[in-house]
Amino acid sequence: MARRRKHRPLFRRRTKPGASPGTVAVAPDAPKPVIRAMAYGGKAFVEEEIHDVSRVAALMGKHPVLWLDVDGLGDAAAIEKLGELFHLHRLALEDVVNVHQRPKVERYANFVFLVARMVTLNDRVETEQISIFLGENFVLTFQEGRPGDCLDPVRRRIREQVGKIRESGPDYLAYALLDAVIDGYFPVVEECGGRLDALEESVLAGNDPHVMDALHSMKRNLLVLRRIVWPYREAVGELARETTPYFTEQTRLHLRDCYDHVVQLIDLVALARELTVDLRDLHMSMLGNRTNETMRVLTVMATIFIPLTFIVGVYGMNFRFMPELTSVWGYPAVLAGMGLIAAGMLLFFYFRGWLRLPKQG
Amino acid sequence: MARRRKHRPLFRRRTKPGASPGTVAVAPDAPKPVIRAMAYGGKAFVEEEIHDVSRVAALMGKHPVLWLDVDGLGDAAAIEKLGELFHLHRLALEDVVNVHQRPKVERYANFVFLVARMVTLNDRVETEQISIFLGENFVLTFQEGRPGDCLDPVRRRIREQVGKIRESGPDYLAYALLDAVIDGYFPVVEECGGRLDALEESVLAGNDPHVMDALHSMKRNLLVLRRIVWPYREAVGELARETTPYFTEQTRLHLRDCYDHVVQLIDLVALARELTVDLRDLHMSMLGNRTNETMRVLTVMATIFIPLTFIVGVYGMNFRFMPELTSVWGYPAVLAGMGLIAAGMLLFFYFRGWLRLPKQG
Amino acid sequence: MARRRKHRPLFRRRTKPGASPGTVAVAPDAPKPVIRAMAYGGKAFVEEEIHDVSRVAALMGKHPVLWLDVDGLGDAAAIEKLGELFHLHRLALEDVVNVHQRPKVERYANFVFLVARMVTLNDRVETEQISIFLGENFVLTFQEGRPGDCLDPVRRRIREQVGKIRESGPDYLAYALLDAVIDGYFPVVEECGGRLDALEESVLAGNDPHVMDALHSMKRNLLVLRRIVWPYREAVGELARETTPYFTEQTRLHLRDCYDHVVQLIDLVALARELTVDLRDLHMSMLGNRTNETMRVLTVMATIFIPLTFIVGVYGMNFRFMPELTSVWGYPAVLAGMGLIAAGMLLFFYFRGWLRLPKQG
Amino acid sequence: MARRRKHRPLFRRRTKPGASPGTVAVAPDAPKPVIRAMAYGGKAFVEEEIHDVSRVAALMGKHPVLWLDVDGLGDAAAIEKLGELFHLHRLALEDVVNVHQRPKVERYANFVFLVARMVTLNDRVETEQISIFLGENFVLTFQEGRPGDCLDPVRRRIREQVGKIRESGPDYLAYALLDAVIDGYFPVVEECGGRLDALEESVLAGNDPHVMDALHSMKRNLLVLRRIVWPYREAVGELARETTPYFTEQTRLHLRDCYDHVVQLIDLVALARELTVDLRDLHMSMLGNRTNETMRVLTVMATIFIPLTFIVGVYGMNFRFMPELTSVWGYPAVLAGMGLIAAGMLLFFYFRGWLRLPKQG
Amino acid sequence: MARRRKHRPLFRRRTKPGASPGTVAVAPDAPKPVIRAMAYGGKAFVEEEIHDVSRVAALMGKHPVLWLDVDGLGDAAAIEKLGELFHLHRLALEDVVNVHQRPKVERYANFVFLVARMVTLNDRVETEQISIFLGENFVLTFQEGRPGDCLDPVRRRIREQVGKIRESGPDYLAYALLDAVIDGYFPVVEECGGRLDALEESVLAGNDPHVMDALHSMKRNLLVLRRIVWPYREAVGELARETTPYFTEQTRLHLRDCYDHVVQLIDLVALARELTVDLRDLHMSMLGNRTNETMRVLTVMATIFIPLTFIVGVYGMNFRFMPELTSVWGYPAVLAGMGLIAAGMLLFFYFRGWLRLPKQG
Repeated sequence: MARRRKHRPLFRRRTKPGASPGTVAVAPDAPKPVIRAMAYGGKAFVEEEIHDVSRVAALMGKHPVLWLDVDGLGDAAAIEKLGELFHLHRLALEDVVNVHQRPKVERYANFVFLVARMVTLNDRVETEQISIFLGENFVLTFQEGRPGDCLDPVRRRIREQVGKIRESGPDYLAYALLDAVIDGYFPVVEECGGRLDALEESVLAGNDPHVMDALHSMKRNLLVLRRIVWPYREAVGELARETTPYFTEQTRLHLRDCYDHVVQLIDLVALARELTVDLRDLHMSMLGNRTNETMRVLTVMATIFIPLTFIVGVYGMNFRFMPELTSVWGYPAVLAGMGLIAAGMLLFFYFRGWLRLPKQG
Repeated sequence: MARRRKHRPLFRRRTKPGASPGTVAVAPDAPKPVIRAMAYGGKAFVEEEIHDVSRVAALMGKHPVLWLDVDGLGDAAAIEKLGELFHLHRLALEDVVNVHQRPKVERYANFVFLVARMVTLNDRVETEQISIFLGENFVLTFQEGRPGDCLDPVRRRIREQVGKIRESGPDYLAYALLDAVIDGYFPVVEECGGRLDALEESVLAGNDPHVMDALHSMKRNLLVLRRIVWPYREAVGELARETTPYFTEQTRLHLRDCYDHVVQLIDLVALARELTVDLRDLHMSMLGNRTNETMRVLTVMATIFIPLTFIVGVYGMNFRFMPELTSVWGYPAVLAGMGLIAAGMLLFFYFRGWLRLPKQG
Repeated sequence: MARRRKHRPLFRRRTKPGASPGTVAVAPDAPKPVIRAMAYGGKAFVEEEIHDVSRVAALMGKHPVLWLDVDGLGDAAAIEKLGELFHLHRLALEDVVNVHQRPKVERYANFVFLVARMVTLNDRVETEQISIFLGENFVLTFQEGRPGDCLDPVRRRIREQVGKIRESGPDYLAYALLDAVIDGYFPVVEECGGRLDALEESVLAGNDPHVMDALHSMKRNLLVLRRIVWPYREAVGELARETTPYFTEQTRLHLRDCYDHVVQLIDLVALARELTVDLRDLHMSMLGNRTNETMRVLTVMATIFIPLTFIVGVYGMNFRFMPELTSVWGYPAVLAGMGLIAAGMLLFFYFRGWLRLPKQG
Repeated sequence: MARRRKHRPLFRRRTKPGASPGTVAVAPDAPKPVIRAMAYGGKAFVEEEIHDVSRVAALMGKHPVLWLDVDGLGDAAAIEKLGELFHLHRLALEDVVNVHQRPKVERYANFVFLVARMVTLNDRVETEQISIFLGENFVLTFQEGRPGDCLDPVRRRIREQVGKIRESGPDYLAYALLDAVIDGYFPVVEECGGRLDALEESVLAGNDPHVMDALHSMKRNLLVLRRIVWPYREAVGELARETTPYFTEQTRLHLRDCYDHVVQLIDLVALARELTVDLRDLHMSMLGNRTNETMRVLTVMATIFIPLTFIVGVYGMNFRFMPELTSVWGYPAVLAGMGLIAAGMLLFFYFRGWLRLPKQG
Repeated sequence: MARRRKHRPLFRRRTKPGASPGTVAVAPDAPKPVIRAMAYGGKAFVEEEIHDVSRVAALMGKHPVLWLDVDGLGDAAAIEKLGELFHLHRLALEDVVNVHQRPKVERYANFVFLVARMVTLNDRVETEQISIFLGENFVLTFQEGRPGDCLDPVRRRIREQVGKIRESGPDYLAYALLDAVIDGYFPVVEECGGRLDALEESVLAGNDPHVMDALHSMKRNLLVLRRIVWPYREAVGELARETTPYFTEQTRLHLRDCYDHVVQLIDLVALARELTVDLRDLHMSMLGNRTNETMRVLTVMATIFIPLTFIVGVYGMNFRFMPELTSVWGYPAVLAGMGLIAAGMLLFFYFRGWLRLPKQG
């Protein structure tokens, strides 16, 4: 049980109530940022790790697309510096360090601000916030700095010039990042599906006392997943539909595809939830079944032997004048009588169908 | 239980996360395609099986309507070739090979792309994706290549010139195919209805220990059905309402009819689900009833005999000084007393109504 | 149980999948039609039974309103003939013979097509489809041909010139028919309400083992009712709101009233469903209560007598050296001790409140 | 139980199916109407009881506002006469006598027709229909004629010139009446809240066998309340939003306030329903808890004594050759052995936590 | 239980039904108001406590922003005086003293009226109404006068010139107050989350008999929270979207951020509710599990010993002619036979899996 404690709490919000809006307050345990820059356009391609934020200014505007990936939110000064360089609004910066945002899209005068969440499933579903700023010639991403992310395939496609990513603008890059994040949900949902199949077998076998616990844990995970997946629908749908100066018609077609994936995800999560509820019902019913069956065994045994035990008790009494006791036929007659009673009982139970026992226990 | 494993998983998606969008990645176990062409217009009618995709070019534009049915998705090159021939968008082609799409309609510049799912019911509901491309003078269908489909009546109507299909354009053919697919759901829903009737009888008879399992399986099937049937509502409704260059006014009237069928399907599936939930409630209540009844039998038997057994125990004690034991009337008096106690108990139970036993077991 | 089988199945659809759309396929067991014509306008009024469909042409256009009521769908030729005479669309005719339509309104170029369902409640709710065609100067109704319908009051109002029906056009007649059909639902819902009251008493009395079965049957009926009643809302609401050439402003005011009744019906059916669910909950809770009570009786009896029986067993042992047995005070001391134990147990149970027994059984 | 029967049925509708629309059919048991007129405008104020409907004509148009309150629907002729005098539509008059309408607003050419329901809570929630006609210079109200209504405060405000009612037109009077009716719901909802608090204590105390019955009754009442309260939302919202010639801008501001109260009511009823459902869950869970506890007492007692009783039975056998019986240590050894067994059992139960007993019974 | 009584009732409304609308009726137990004024603009800043309402007039219009905070509603005259000074509508004043309003926004001709609720969580969630009037150059707040509020951080920001609050108009102040109130919900929701985690452990440990009670209490709190949080969505959303003369474009950007927080809150409360429902299900299932387990222990013990006890009873009978009794092998043979029976039973139970006992009790 104590083990459960180390999970990140679901209900937490970092900024202190009443703080001035737009405050960039980093968590004391947030890891120091690692900043990687990729700048490209057609054939040209530069990649470097940045150790000093002031180096960024030198990269700006040199290439059609500049992608700055900040992995770790432990340095408020650096984040504020980047905010100034790229003219980001303070309210958006506040959301970057306040890592409990729901996925959303916000349009500002000079940039589009996207919040998405990357998802992993260990014992529980856990998520990491990724904030994406899309400007005229840059994409800025902020991650929480946990080990690993799901953006490596995009990096590889840029480096190795796979598909048309090197020929496209920053809007396509932003789409590609969002798509990679959303694609990362499918293995998690698949894993849930696999666990549900295993749980179904456990429920039907009825021999796992922890199945209800596992179902509960599954429901919790699906609740969390649903909570994260739903807001994408509105956010991505909006991007795919509306005309903004930042997304080309071509990229919007891809966003429609991305929206399709979101709808599919929502659908799968909903399906998984309903299957979980069904399994719980099935489990409860089998439990009731089992209790009923146990009752029957007890009832059959007790009902047959209780009257017989009474009878032998009668002839165990020490009254001086009990004529049956002295009869030669007393003992066999009582035995026979008891046999008849037992047979009658058994017939009664047989016709009530209580002697049929299901295979399983 | 192991038998359940061989079903196709509900939660699977083929393309690897992070792949470049528009990748046509066929599954390794997808069957090789069988391609059949039908070209017609009024009296003219040609039908042939195509073994080499390059043969298709020769058929294009010769007749008012060309229907190319590709059954099997195991040949990526052929699919890409067809995509080039008919100028299909790569994102649509990706959806063709990625056979876990929900039914949908997507409008592209030069064609309309429909995804539908054909349904079969064995132990579980299983579905096969059919992708329909409708262009100016062609209809292209891609199936997963499983044995059998529900399009034979349409083929027969073309061959034998039944109704007005030969006089109509490719839009009518696309409608006819969609209608055939949707009509194929009704026997499945009817079968579910029949099974529900049988389950109702089982529940009321109360003698089938696997009824809850069957109800669970039914709910699962209906969940899957609902998940497939719902998206049609939006897709077909959109086709029936909106004016696109691809559907004539006349065909739209037929699409309205088709939409009607979809609404009816949704309605029947919802009805079946609610009946299933009701049956589960009924089953659980009868289970509780049965447990209660078993309890009563046990309680009546135990409550009558436990005090009597105590009494005979008393007179079975070996105390030297028990005056009752030596009395001539001791034995008959005790027997009579126990008879009175038993009668009192029986009266008590009778007035509490515990001696009434329902018919069933 | 077998008796249940003779009900009409809920999940049935007549036309074979894949049939050409617009096929008029009558069921083999459909009764032969009885056709009645009523033509009127102000003072003028003609009524006759029609045995030959070709006679209809002679009646057309003679009076402001011609109402042709076809009761029975067993004659495909006659239906097709009528379709030709009144220029009815084949898709509408297909819906006429396919008697599993939901209530709906469809507008065609030269007529309005309404589908309604008449309802009866025996053991189960059963419905009969009535299709209404409203044209410029005619109303055509098709019924399934079951004995009895709810249109007699309308016929009487025409014959006896009650209200303004004889002065009004065919739109008012169509409204009057629809209103009569919808009015026919109220007695059914009232009957359901009465049964629910009776069921409530049964549940509270707790002595009817079939109450859960009856609740299930009630829920099933209400499900079916709801399924039929809901679509009216859309259909009638549309007629009352939209301006079509076929309905005068005056009739639309009456349709608003009719819409009001539909809303009231939906409301009552929803109320009845919630009451049914509540009764089921109440029933389940009382069942649990009863099991608990049975358990208590058993527990009290067993717990008091089991230790006592043990004690008398001890003194029934045949050990040669048991000093208590030879004591003169042994027997009374043991009796007294057992009395004390029993009293203690009773006190314990009394303070736990287990000796209180509810009145009912 | 029989007592329940005297409540007014929920599912009743007076007019016979198929009657001509607009029929004013009074119920045979409807009380004769008592008609009170109030006419006012600024300082001027007249109040009289009217015994002959023809007297009304003399009052019309004399004052800016004429309020005629008809309490009792037992006189069809009087109602029809009033209908003619004020030019009321027959469909509206039909709704007046058909006292099972849902709250609603209907706009006619020359008046606005409002239906509201006054509510009282005894054992069950009961309602009385009040129909309000608002014309250019009159307000006409029809009540069912049950004893008491909630309009006295309005009458007092008119008589005593409280607030601005005497300076305002008939629209303000209609608003004031509607507001008084809706205000009358709050004490009922408060009473429900109080009963819920009492029920919560009963459930937690667990000593009231009728708590489930009371919860059921509460749910029924809340169902009925919700059914009446919801339609107000649409009706009052519409009045507050739309511009009609009958409501001044000033009165619409008050209607917005009234709408606010309706939303609050809906909210409170929904809250009460959810609390009721929660209480039912809590009750069911405590019931299960109690059954479990009873089981434990039985199991502990039986499990300890059953083996001991067996042992004493063994040494109660009458075999001639049982060496233990003749041993001097036999009896003490057996007693000691049984003591050990009992201690072991108790330890086992102690570590399983079965010896802890909750306080309650 | 009695302790529960002292909470403020959920279902209460102060004004008497039928009172004239716009009546300012203060509750008899409402505390006397404490009025604090803050007036500022850029560098200028005045703060004073006001003891006489007439002093307010002197402060009006002197500074760009005047914030008057009235804490306590016990002085109807003062409230009415302020209403006159600032030209507030009587209906709004009625809502100020009627402290059971839902959060809402109402636009009047010369001011915007906001109602919000500050929330605290002790045993139960309790709320205090705060009414905010925003005019051209003033903000007026009315609180119920309970100890403490959540506005101190805003006061501090004004006094210490933190952020841009001193440079902004009254609209920014109104936003800042609303934001502070909404921020105050997060600690409450977090606390609920923490309690849920603790409850989950209790449920899984299964040793807390009051867990269901605590779950019920949690559900009640979440119901109340949801009821308060939902209306913000509409109110704040409206403010953020619509253009009113009172909110600048800049402040609307901040309101969008505030709306975001509201959506997050709604989301968290919904999540907490679903987790609570899940925990209840888990608890019920574990209860059923435990009952089943108890049953098994009883059944195993009883089933093994009941036949054995019968056998020893047989040989305890006192028949004169029982050949077994005199045999030397009688006793050992019976012992061996009983051993075999017990072993058989144990094997039977072993293979049914009834001997496996879960760890917990």
